[in-house]
Amino acid sequence: MRTLIKNGTLITAAETFRADILIEGEKIAAIGADLTAPDARVLDAEGKLVLPGGVDVHTHFDLPMFGTVSSDDHYTGHKAAAFGGTTTVIDFVSQDYPNLRQCVDAWHERVGGKAAVDYSFHMNITHLYPDTLAELPALLDEGISSVKVFTAYNNRLRLPDDDILRVMRVAGKHGILTMMHAENGDVIELLVAEALAQGRTEPVWHARTRPAWSAVEAVLRGAALAGMADAPLYVVHMNAAGEVDMLAYARAQGLPVMGETCPQYLFFSEEDLQRPDGAKWICSPPVRTPADQERLWQGLADGTLQALATDHCPFFYDGTQPIEYEGKPVAIPGKELGRGDFTRIPNGLPGVGDRLPVLWTYGVGAGRLTPNQFVALTATQPARIFGLYPQKGALLPGADADIVLWNPAQRLTYGVRYAHHRTDYNLYEGWELQGFPETVLLRGQVIVHQGEWRGRPGMGRFLKRSSGEVI
Amino acid sequence: MRTLIKNGTLITAAETFRADILIEGEKIAAIGADLTAPDARVLDAEGKLVLPGGVDVHTHFDLPMFGTVSSDDHYTGHKAAAFGGTTTVIDFVSQDYPNLRQCVDAWHERVGGKAAVDYSFHMNITHLYPDTLAELPALLDEGISSVKVFTAYNNRLRLPDDDILRVMRVAGKHGILTMMHAENGDVIELLVAEALAQGRTEPVWHARTRPAWSAVEAVLRGAALAGMADAPLYVVHMNAAGEVDMLAYARAQGLPVMGETCPQYLFFSEEDLQRPDGAKWICSPPVRTPADQERLWQGLADGTLQALATDHCPFFYDGTQPIEYEGKPVAIPGKELGRGDFTRIPNGLPGVGDRLPVLWTYGVGAGRLTPNQFVALTATQPARIFGLYPQKGALLPGADADIVLWNPAQRLTYGVRYAHHRTDYNLYEGWELQGFPETVLLRGQVIVHQGEWRGRPGMGRFLKRSSGEVI
Amino acid sequence: MRTLIKNGTLITAAETFRADILIEGEKIAAIGADLTAPDARVLDAEGKLVLPGGVDVHTHFDLPMFGTVSSDDHYTGHKAAAFGGTTTVIDFVSQDYPNLRQCVDAWHERVGGKAAVDYSFHMNITHLYPDTLAELPALLDEGISSVKVFTAYNNRLRLPDDDILRVMRVAGKHGILTMMHAENGDVIELLVAEALAQGRTEPVWHARTRPAWSAVEAVLRGAALAGMADAPLYVVHMNAAGEVDMLAYARAQGLPVMGETCPQYLFFSEEDLQRPDGAKWICSPPVRTPADQERLWQGLADGTLQALATDHCPFFYDGTQPIEYEGKPVAIPGKELGRGDFTRIPNGLPGVGDRLPVLWTYGVGAGRLTPNQFVALTATQPARIFGLYPQKGALLPGADADIVLWNPAQRLTYGVRYAHHRTDYNLYEGWELQGFPETVLLRGQVIVHQGEWRGRPGMGRFLKRSSGEVI
Amino acid sequence: MRTLIKNGTLITAAETFRADILIEGEKIAAIGADLTAPDARVLDAEGKLVLPGGVDVHTHFDLPMFGTVSSDDHYTGHKAAAFGGTTTVIDFVSQDYPNLRQCVDAWHERVGGKAAVDYSFHMNITHLYPDTLAELPALLDEGISSVKVFTAYNNRLRLPDDDILRVMRVAGKHGILTMMHAENGDVIELLVAEALAQGRTEPVWHARTRPAWSAVEAVLRGAALAGMADAPLYVVHMNAAGEVDMLAYARAQGLPVMGETCPQYLFFSEEDLQRPDGAKWICSPPVRTPADQERLWQGLADGTLQALATDHCPFFYDGTQPIEYEGKPVAIPGKELGRGDFTRIPNGLPGVGDRLPVLWTYGVGAGRLTPNQFVALTATQPARIFGLYPQKGALLPGADADIVLWNPAQRLTYGVRYAHHRTDYNLYEGWELQGFPETVLLRGQVIVHQGEWRGRPGMGRFLKRSSGEVI
Repeated sequence: MRTLIKNGTLITAAETFRADILIEGEKIAAIGADLTAPDARVLDAEGKLVLPGGVDVHTHFDLPMFGTVSSDDHYTGHKAAAFGGTTTVIDFVSQDYPNLRQCVDAWHERVGGKAAVDYSFHMNITHLYPDTLAELPALLDEGISSVKVFTAYNNRLRLPDDDILRVMRVAGKHGILTMMHAENGDVIELLVAEALAQGRTEPVWHARTRPAWSAVEAVLRGAALAGMADAPLYVVHMNAAGEVDMLAYARAQGLPVMGETCPQYLFFSEEDLQRPDGAKWICSPPVRTPADQERLWQGLADGTLQALATDHCPFFYDGTQPIEYEGKPVAIPGKELGRGDFTRIPNGLPGVGDRLPVLWTYGVGAGRLTPNQFVALTATQPARIFGLYPQKGALLPGADADIVLWNPAQRLTYGVRYAHHRTDYNLYEGWELQGFPETVLLRGQVIVHQGEWRGRPGMGRFLKRSSGEVI
Repeated sequence: MRTLIKNGTLITAAETFRADILIEGEKIAAIGADLTAPDARVLDAEGKLVLPGGVDVHTHFDLPMFGTVSSDDHYTGHKAAAFGGTTTVIDFVSQDYPNLRQCVDAWHERVGGKAAVDYSFHMNITHLYPDTLAELPALLDEGISSVKVFTAYNNRLRLPDDDILRVMRVAGKHGILTMMHAENGDVIELLVAEALAQGRTEPVWHARTRPAWSAVEAVLRGAALAGMADAPLYVVHMNAAGEVDMLAYARAQGLPVMGETCPQYLFFSEEDLQRPDGAKWICSPPVRTPADQERLWQGLADGTLQALATDHCPFFYDGTQPIEYEGKPVAIPGKELGRGDFTRIPNGLPGVGDRLPVLWTYGVGAGRLTPNQFVALTATQPARIFGLYPQKGALLPGADADIVLWNPAQRLTYGVRYAHHRTDYNLYEGWELQGFPETVLLRGQVIVHQGEWRGRPGMGRFLKRSSGEVI
Repeated sequence: MRTLIKNGTLITAAETFRADILIEGEKIAAIGADLTAPDARVLDAEGKLVLPGGVDVHTHFDLPMFGTVSSDDHYTGHKAAAFGGTTTVIDFVSQDYPNLRQCVDAWHERVGGKAAVDYSFHMNITHLYPDTLAELPALLDEGISSVKVFTAYNNRLRLPDDDILRVMRVAGKHGILTMMHAENGDVIELLVAEALAQGRTEPVWHARTRPAWSAVEAVLRGAALAGMADAPLYVVHMNAAGEVDMLAYARAQGLPVMGETCPQYLFFSEEDLQRPDGAKWICSPPVRTPADQERLWQGLADGTLQALATDHCPFFYDGTQPIEYEGKPVAIPGKELGRGDFTRIPNGLPGVGDRLPVLWTYGVGAGRLTPNQFVALTATQPARIFGLYPQKGALLPGADADIVLWNPAQRLTYGVRYAHHRTDYNLYEGWELQGFPETVLLRGQVIVHQGEWRGRPGMGRFLKRSSGEVI
Repeated sequence: MRTLIKNGTLITAAETFRADILIEGEKIAAIGADLTAPDARVLDAEGKLVLPGGVDVHTHFDLPMFGTVSSDDHYTGHKAAAFGGTTTVIDFVSQDYPNLRQCVDAWHERVGGKAAVDYSFHMNITHLYPDTLAELPALLDEGISSVKVFTAYNNRLRLPDDDILRVMRVAGKHGILTMMHAENGDVIELLVAEALAQGRTEPVWHARTRPAWSAVEAVLRGAALAGMADAPLYVVHMNAAGEVDMLAYARAQGLPVMGETCPQYLFFSEEDLQRPDGAKWICSPPVRTPADQERLWQGLADGTLQALATDHCPFFYDGTQPIEYEGKPVAIPGKELGRGDFTRIPNGLPGVGDRLPVLWTYGVGAGRLTPNQFVALTATQPARIFGLYPQKGALLPGADADIVLWNPAQRLTYGVRYAHHRTDYNLYEGWELQGFPETVLLRGQVIVHQGEWRGRPGMGRFLKRSSGEVI
């Protein structure tokens, strides 16, 4: 089976040029001027931009939390991703068992046959059992080249600094990247307890009990640990101006540290948490201020931040009211669980499908990012950092034919109607967009075309990743 | 009793001018041109500089450690201070009892009748007993307007971050300044254990197990906690370039944070620890690199650092060999305790008497600091920060007549011969100095004159301090 | 004649303390606690702040321009200064004759017997006649230790860069400070010509034809010339954020460069030029933007800028309408000359009397500056830089008894009623002030008391200045 | 004619990947995995790196200077370029006639049939004749999308700042990029005259009469003019740390300014000028210090500088001694003209052929730059900035097949033996290199292969450039 994409304008992390793409089977076979292939199916990309499929390295599908579960599973989340132009996702394996292999196996079981786009796993390291460090190197054999540690969530997910240092050293030595959720657990536990004791239960207290300085210091602490471990670090979901300052400082000092932000931190602030439906914006770390948003945009543009992911972890706003999904009613307990107590509101937001369309209009369209930076931040660089490049994130011969035909002229009013997340709200409801994915190919097969879903569970394949790059 | 200092050139934190000083009793009564006072004793300061007596806010006299005790007690240490031009010292009270008052009382007892210059106490907060926070405000009534916390020395002195935040909030609310020893305890414990396990026992491993990044992050952590507590912070013995960067960053963000360094960090480096007698340079945090020294000098000159103290905590290099002190042989176990195991070497250096002479020659004489900055860093600003100003650190009417007549022309080869520390070595042995204190007055009384000791135990008085300033 | 100022709180550049001041003749004789002097006149300063008299190093009295003359002469301007708490002013001598001595003599003649406060001169160097460089060193003998050069006003005041370099070298070598008006003359001439050609004649075009970047580059150019000349530089009337950035950069590189700003640049912007009476705000360089104001405040607070002067050069807004001055009608052609053509509007503003009161309320009162910084910026540092210290700008024994008793509690609505400038408007008309000079002494004599003028022409004395300091 | 490059590893400005390249005629037709083309000539690139041909945007071939001429003409210089992996050069047209078209025509005549690689022209604007500004836009029609101005060389090449502003505005409006030689002409003329008057005639005085600060300020001046003109600027041959600081500052302020450096500034310093044969290193601006070199490397790595060109302008070190070139003896008067007077030493160095090999070993091999940055700085970004992209500087379908097969394993001792410049010395004589161009294609034709020259005069083609990009 051959496919020929004709007349498109290719956009890569660095270049913009007209060329045709010949796909043979699952791979890009050639990129050329006026390619011909008599037997090939032809997709006419005249007037379209041709992008590598998006790579979202931060998702939480089917994640148990607070007595419920994130409302997208590994099928519905993948499908939503695909509609938004993303063809690769990386989910986090919880360390639910003392043996890492067992944890990974359990996560493979959760996915079961659901996967609709390609996917991989990061491994959370939240406890150091006697054998955990010894088991780390073998993760790479299973295609897992990244682990995540937490400086917050005392007694649940947090590792003390010495254990983080030990994880980083072993990971770094074996080509495994350490990711970090950087907030000060001690401070947050104290402030939350005090807020509850004072009857501060509204959603905005979620933000007020997780102050920005608690995240800023933790970013530098992570960087310092990386420096002492001589190992690379990737800070997830950066959200505060000071965090970007600290990342820039550490990088200028030569430390191998990188960082990601997510769309919610670019567009929303504590004021949203004060709306009547503020619970919709509850995520951890919290959304901050317009000044933080500005610094994050700057960090994306100047290279301090290398990736834009989503931390997709959706919940229903009102899980007592079913919505229709693929023709059937669905209701999953969600944000309403925390009515009257912000600490019980499931933490997380939908976003995997929103990421590219929203960033295109409000990043590229608004002149904050070039189209090439858009591709670099959402596909190429994540793929490089996480050991998927050039299989993913690239329009190159030999790469997987994960391709998006992007219609830069399409205008629409975005919201749940276009987002295919399995939840009852969308953060960008009513936002005007220009530019949208029209056709999405996964390894050479069209899975989305003009709003129609052509994918199916089981099409997605687990990606065994190699060691990534420090960029 | 009146004293008239004639014909001197006064140097204050900001001004240099010729004037006479009239002292009445213990106080400066007037500063004037051509003052006359028929009945007064006259000290001719022609050719001399007239400085306020030095204020060393960081000393450890008679401090138990590692089975021995720092070798200067509250008499010998005060005497050494006086010879070096310092007339006020602040020592740290260990939290040896659950009740803070009891701790303070015990420290007063240690001093007993020994004090030879004026002194005050900081209170270490190293455990939060049920009543500790409630007891904090009363410290101010006892004249103790500063507390010290540690992020290092797990299970001994360290408080967790949430407890530090709680201390800072109570202290800040009641006008008490929080001081911080900023290193990452987790990291250090791990590295020390590993070093010992690998048989790394030489003195230089003291530095290698306390890496600079561990201190750099802790400084920002401290500043962040101060920001979240809305309370001032003073970071003691800053030693690494990155720490100065972080202090500058935090100050630029508007946080009320200040910092001190000590002479050992300006002049020595890890290379000194590698000498055969490297144990002499063991202090915590460790001495670093020439690049760190450079940044510390810059921080002193540009105002990022506000104080130069000593962390005076001397030990004999060889406590088995008596030295003669006031005509009698003295030997106190010291650095030799750690021969073969750097973790057993008592941590600390002599310095209280060296501070002013060494900084004058190598700071002012070398063109790195002006004479006014010298006074600001060693007397005026420490006094302001710690609630002693304008009683101490100032040449002003009404201030205590703690005055140094400094001979800028005197040249000497410094070392144990001139330093009056009760120990068997001096870090600056053989250094050429120009400029030296010739006459030192404590509250109007001459206690040192041309190398002769005129003071005596009991002359020193406890200073009840008020709330200090943030500068 | 002796005067004793009792019970006041003295504010110097660095310290705040209660003390009495004894004045003997023209000088401060002593500063002391509870001073007594039976024969002395006593001024009770209880509740008052005692400041050194202000030093305004940038005034233009009786300056011919555009066919008229600045409306304050060396009497009215001095009187206005005194009412505002300023007791020393430095005016600029125009290089109206080939021989510098002749120029200076002419300026002495202009002053004639008018001087009411102490004063000195800077010498403008706007042409290099064959002997000019050779004549420079002799300026110091005449008490003129500063010269001013211009990079703007082509064919009138500007020197080419090589001549500036030559001036700086000779000046620097002989202890004379070079001051600089830093704007790009070429650019301004071009833009002005273009604006006129396009019929752009409104006052705001004064600012639009002098863009900030033209000033920013000129500041760095001046600093670079200073570096190459190994000579100090003082940039006058800095007004743009980028200028402060450049000064900070140059200082961080070790260049001996300093800078001044003026109140108009802290409070007004191009929007004021667009008012119907925008001509009132015409000065050169022009007022800029709120962001520039913010950076200037920051520069004052962090030490990048060392002085706040006024560039006082007032003109009547409507010189056809007489005002009453000392009981007589006065009208001097002013801003109306440029009605319909901004290039004919005399450049300059009143300010010598407004400086201290306005800065006190909106600088100190607003928390942007401490009282000590206020004194440093308006008196002490200007005096030090320009070789008047400690005769002026200091509360020290031996200093001239130029003293202001400042009433921090006085509230008033400011404007022409309180400002004694000889012009028909005040930029701060209607501004609410708290804190105002109540009594002003010039060399021991009260010249202003509670709004009453006790000075007279001829009381002011020419100050022969020595070489200043680089701070 | 088709050519197939098999099995190579392609290196572009952003990506490294294995692929084959099919060339049809002069263009790249396709890039693919395992491409086949039965009729094509096959170049096996196994073990080779495949790079786009280098683009050197700063050469001076056959340039009259100081009574002689740069010793490479448009043939020998092109040939040397080709041997070094460079297939596009851009030369500067002197403004020798009042009419720009006439100047360009004359330069086309100078090239005549000599060109051996592709080439284009920049137009120097060194005089504003009455019609010059009006003629500017037409340059674009002739394929000249860049002009160069000088702030140095008074009365020869320099334009006053207002004229530069005028040029920038017209150029910017019409899509023409302004380049700038940024030094302070006034300062240099003065210092040179003084040096000569003092008998300072050694080569090092060339550097001492062109101090770094003179260049640093001129860079900011250029940037400021660009900001005021709202037009892009490209600063040539940046050489001083402060220049990079200023470029970084201006870019951070949002100004559309870019910068180039050259190899000589990365590797040599004033010390080289003090060698007995120091004249070899005479170029303008001069080589500086190791600290400047370090900052330039940093600027290349962090994106502050966008291009590495050569300013190739060679002269014989001893033009009285013939060398053999293409079998014939050649001698052209050179550096010896200035023996005894540095102002008569022709300014310029050979470099067009050295650029890529030297930068590969000492930039990429030394870990300072990645291979992708190497391509970006030497080919892709220069092409983008100067309107040649993607025709040049890219490995993309449709691009010119200018391709270098680079042998990363080749080791050699570099010098005149390998450099094909028509001169008698090489700055890198005896330097050990690893990595060297093995085969060079110009629009599909092999012109260099394993040290053999297969090109010929006339093969090179004039490139009509379009408007470039600001990056």
